[in-house]
Amino acid sequence: MKVAFIGLGVMGYPMAGHLKKAGHDVTVYNRNSEKAKQWKAEYGGETAPTPAEAAKGQEIVFCCVGRDSDLREVTLGGQGAFQAMAKGGLFVDHTTASASIARELAAEAEKRGFDFVDAPVSGGQAGAVNGKLGIMCGGKEDAYAKAEAVMAPYTKMAKRLGPPGSGQLTKMVNQICIAGIVQGMSEAYSLMRAAGLDIEAVTDVISKGAAQSWQMENRVKTMNAGQYEHGFAVEWMRKDLGIALEEARKQGVSLPITAVVDQFYAEVENLGGKRWDTSSLFVRQEAARKGNKK
Amino acid sequence: MKVAFIGLGVMGYPMAGHLKKAGHDVTVYNRNSEKAKQWKAEYGGETAPTPAEAAKGQEIVFCCVGRDSDLREVTLGGQGAFQAMAKGGLFVDHTTASASIARELAAEAEKRGFDFVDAPVSGGQAGAVNGKLGIMCGGKEDAYAKAEAVMAPYTKMAKRLGPPGSGQLTKMVNQICIAGIVQGMSEAYSLMRAAGLDIEAVTDVISKGAAQSWQMENRVKTMNAGQYEHGFAVEWMRKDLGIALEEARKQGVSLPITAVVDQFYAEVENLGGKRWDTSSLFVRQEAARKGNKK
Repeated sequence: MKVAFIGLGVMGYPMAGHLKKAGHDVTVYNRNSEKAKQWKAEYGGETAPTPAEAAKGQEIVFCCVGRDSDLREVTLGGQGAFQAMAKGGLFVDHTTASASIARELAAEAEKRGFDFVDAPVSGGQAGAVNGKLGIMCGGKEDAYAKAEAVMAPYTKMAKRLGPPGSGQLTKMVNQICIAGIVQGMSEAYSLMRAAGLDIEAVTDVISKGAAQSWQMENRVKTMNAGQYEHGFAVEWMRKDLGIALEEARKQGVSLPITAVVDQFYAEVENLGGKRWDTSSLFVRQEAARKGNKK
Repeated sequence: MKVAFIGLGVMGYPMAGHLKKAGHDVTVYNRNSEKAKQWKAEYGGETAPTPAEAAKGQEIVFCCVGRDSDLREVTLGGQGAFQAMAKGGLFVDHTTASASIARELAAEAEKRGFDFVDAPVSGGQAGAVNGKLGIMCGGKEDAYAKAEAVMAPYTKMAKRLGPPGSGQLTKMVNQICIAGIVQGMSEAYSLMRAAGLDIEAVTDVISKGAAQSWQMENRVKTMNAGQYEHGFAVEWMRKDLGIALEEARKQGVSLPITAVVDQFYAEVENLGGKRWDTSSLFVRQEAARKGNKK
């Protein structure tokens, strides 16, 4: 199949590679063209100088960029892919972006006679490299079915959750849950450390029951050791929580602890933690505890 | 072995039964003596009119009552068990109580020449009936070893976490983690419902990754259906969070979201939810959302 991939970051680069290895004709575009040349040298395929030229004549155009503003530029901008999409084509967006822009791009695509699926992913760089991503999708059923088949080489699990924006909303919900879990754990661990308990021994007991979580099982050792140079970075978590809080504002939903935890992440950034894993809320929590003892 | 059991509530009644079925000579005491007679009719054994008389001449005295004040009455009160404990004996407290009272009772026991182990449990009524409780213990190693052997008939997992009070601290930590998890889920689910997403379908996707938790896997269906007549009651959760917040105050630890979630549980109580499961935070969250739409 003739496809394009826009955005060769840590996620997009290997994802586009999986498409090429699966036998598709892949044309790539990247803002920094050196990266596109490197990709072509590694996988073959073609490069294009603009998103519009990459999109021209393709059956499906995939995209994975940073933020709403980047996504807007590569779709609706003067050289954007939407200017060149073929009628009957499909645009699949893997960016973690707002539900609003997903709905807006879906409406715009419909006007221009092609389909749009929002499809943010989870699983991180390792998932992209190993072809084991979770993909949360929003859009029409037939458009999703078409996307699903082609995404297969980098999919661990994909699901359509509803109309355009549903993929983005699902990703938000994921991050909201993580925020509550990690801050709860951080408070619990801070109390344990103050009281002189062995954090890992206590976790071994409580992780057998109703307090169990993926975060507890996968982050207790690193939190206890003060290691945060891994996982999902605080600055990206703040981007995602910002999107969730903005969407909640539009929907008239209050997210009280999500809002507070987002502020705590601002404090983690101020402690030097922009690139630390989300479990670094424990650093802020412990800094506050030590302050109490002065 | 000659043992006593003080407090035949929904937990103590079957726990004492397990001890009797395991072949121990069991004497029971309960504030409401009808319950003690009923227990004797079911299991055999003996009843005693006061905690002190129950405790007299026993190798181990177990206890499972409601609150710190009840525990103080049955131990240090005029008719309390501590007045009659044999030298070299052991008092094992299964009450979920403060770490402070555990430390106080351990010190008092030491003065009087016997041992004390705090041993709050998790697993609920079903765990007590089926003999599958998690038991979190604090106290001396040899005292714990003695308790562990006798508690075996109702133990799924038991562990000594440190000196007196460590069992209670571990139970607190468990509840703090749950508070963060359930409020995060409630916020996430509220946003989903406002946006018209299928809560169970979305959960099916996000529970495969970093947002996964026992609460998510075990409570999504009932939360989505508005069913809360099961599980661990809000009023008991508030008791436990109150203990945790008091202990944190003493330790100079701030528990920001735990404190907020405790207040949310106060609102759930005002919505009629004293006996609802802890997952009923979603009711408050949804009430707040609907309020926004008036």
